[in-house]
Amino acid sequence: MNQPQTHASLHAPGTTVDIGALANALNAGDIRTCARLITRIERGEEEMVPLLQALYRRGGSARVIGITGPPGAGKSTLINQLVTHWRRKGLRVAVLAVDPSSPISGGAILGDRLRMAAHSGDRGVYIRSMASRGQLGGLSKAAGDALTVLDAMNWDVVLIETVGVGQNETDIMRHASVVLLLQTPMGGDDVQAAKAGIIEIGDIFVVNKSDHPDADRTVQQLQHVLSLSRCLHPDKAWAPPVVKTKALDGEGIADLADHIDRRFAYLADQPETAHNELRARAKHRVGEILRDLLDKRMRSDDGQWLETLIEPMIRRESDPYTLAANLLARMLA
Amino acid sequence: MNQPQTHASLHAPGTTVDIGALANALNAGDIRTCARLITRIERGEEEMVPLLQALYRRGGSARVIGITGPPGAGKSTLINQLVTHWRRKGLRVAVLAVDPSSPISGGAILGDRLRMAAHSGDRGVYIRSMASRGQLGGLSKAAGDALTVLDAMNWDVVLIETVGVGQNETDIMRHASVVLLLQTPMGGDDVQAAKAGIIEIGDIFVVNKSDHPDADRTVQQLQHVLSLSRCLHPDKAWAPPVVKTKALDGEGIADLADHIDRRFAYLADQPETAHNELRARAKHRVGEILRDLLDKRMRSDDGQWLETLIEPMIRRESDPYTLAANLLARMLA
Repeated sequence: MNQPQTHASLHAPGTTVDIGALANALNAGDIRTCARLITRIERGEEEMVPLLQALYRRGGSARVIGITGPPGAGKSTLINQLVTHWRRKGLRVAVLAVDPSSPISGGAILGDRLRMAAHSGDRGVYIRSMASRGQLGGLSKAAGDALTVLDAMNWDVVLIETVGVGQNETDIMRHASVVLLLQTPMGGDDVQAAKAGIIEIGDIFVVNKSDHPDADRTVQQLQHVLSLSRCLHPDKAWAPPVVKTKALDGEGIADLADHIDRRFAYLADQPETAHNELRARAKHRVGEILRDLLDKRMRSDDGQWLETLIEPMIRRESDPYTLAANLLARMLA
Repeated sequence: MNQPQTHASLHAPGTTVDIGALANALNAGDIRTCARLITRIERGEEEMVPLLQALYRRGGSARVIGITGPPGAGKSTLINQLVTHWRRKGLRVAVLAVDPSSPISGGAILGDRLRMAAHSGDRGVYIRSMASRGQLGGLSKAAGDALTVLDAMNWDVVLIETVGVGQNETDIMRHASVVLLLQTPMGGDDVQAAKAGIIEIGDIFVVNKSDHPDADRTVQQLQHVLSLSRCLHPDKAWAPPVVKTKALDGEGIADLADHIDRRFAYLADQPETAHNELRARAKHRVGEILRDLLDKRMRSDDGQWLETLIEPMIRRESDPYTLAANLLARMLA
């Protein structure tokens, strides 16, 4: 009890949160504070909200880059190479790896440690995993919260990584300014990506394992699908490039980093487009948090406010469509 | 143009919906009307809402039974046997098969036809598939809408079937009064079910393929997990039974049907428990529709109401947490 507590406000849920001190610790690059805050965010602790509000208002400076693709496409290797590339240029890089397929486990943390090994001792790199807690929708919201924490530190680049699982993947990639879609050279894979609507969210396409005999065919197929997509959306000025890499020995990584820079330069040159994208992301973020609040409210036992509305519905004197519409109308009034 | 149009209001989206005529057609057991309405629901047509409101208020009489379990557990065979069993007793049965894993396709409809073959020419059976349209959350909402349509017909039993995929499965099973959890006799499967939180939603557990050498061990493991679960929730009066079936030759089907009847008798004997369950389901249904409305609103281009709030957030003078909380507070005021 008499031991000095350097991180007193972080140890136990329910304790008050010293927003100023935590924000300063993050700003000074305190990794331990960052790691603990993300753990509390994963637990969905209510006490984090005032801090997140404050951090959000201080943030917005990091370049948030999303990377997604099927399992086995070589995402981890590619990310390691990109991190090495940026570190050589003196940039500080954080990686948030979001895994919707596995429940929270020591496995994810072991993964972090294995991946960190490549950059061990380098204080300019931070790698952190987040795993699903069974709530698919909530994972993207929690990832956004974690990004808000990372954004309050002075990272030049924050990479957010996830594995493709439909809607969840799309939601998580919405947090990024630039989305890299990783593909493996395999017949028909690109068509699958197009099917899932995933192709719509990619700003840069990467065909990894470029030494694979099917690599060039996959590049061609992707370019074909992308040209079709451009026909459907002629208003889009950005033509997503298809980049070949061989992450295992670093081939194509500099080229890929160039394309990422070009995408950011494009956004800087097109303030209207950039602003529209910011607005769409902001709306999505509000919606995600609102859904999370609603879910919590619906599940809470003290939902008396809804009980009185529910009884007439159970008696079939009302219906859920009318009820939901009324609740929404009240909100938007 | 001069042809008589018996289903005029159903053919084109955007046409007005004659609620009275459609409700009467459903009440008279018109399968074609039902099938077309479910197709329009799958498309998410706004015009369906007034009809769904009216149908919901007339519904509530069908016994809605949910069945879920891993792929290959024999769900289709078991359902076919249950349908045959109930048909012999003179009950009219509808089956809604919800497949979250496949996008909408001719495959689902082919599946319907193959499954219908076993009951072809029997007007007392209707089998209908619904497939994912890429929106996981929306699928459960759409399934609820389809149930509202089926509930307006005079089915004695409506079966809703889905394959296990986490949150989505749980959401879809929430539409049912009684949930059957199907398991295959395989080592560790039950533990997986417990992990996924799925065990919480089962009212009756079925170990199919009872001739499998691992069947008895699986039954024992399930009973063990269920007894642990009962320790955690001692307030629950219903002890979920574990039933062995061999759906392929109809073994155990009558026993399973008895257990289902017993569960309904239990709910009739425990009006408070039954009402609490109805209330929880009703709340969930409102929440689901509200989320759907919110999603549509967030995605709509005319979201001017949100735009004015979003700009300060982009300038980092506000934050999404404050915005979402304000929107919710307004709704609950």
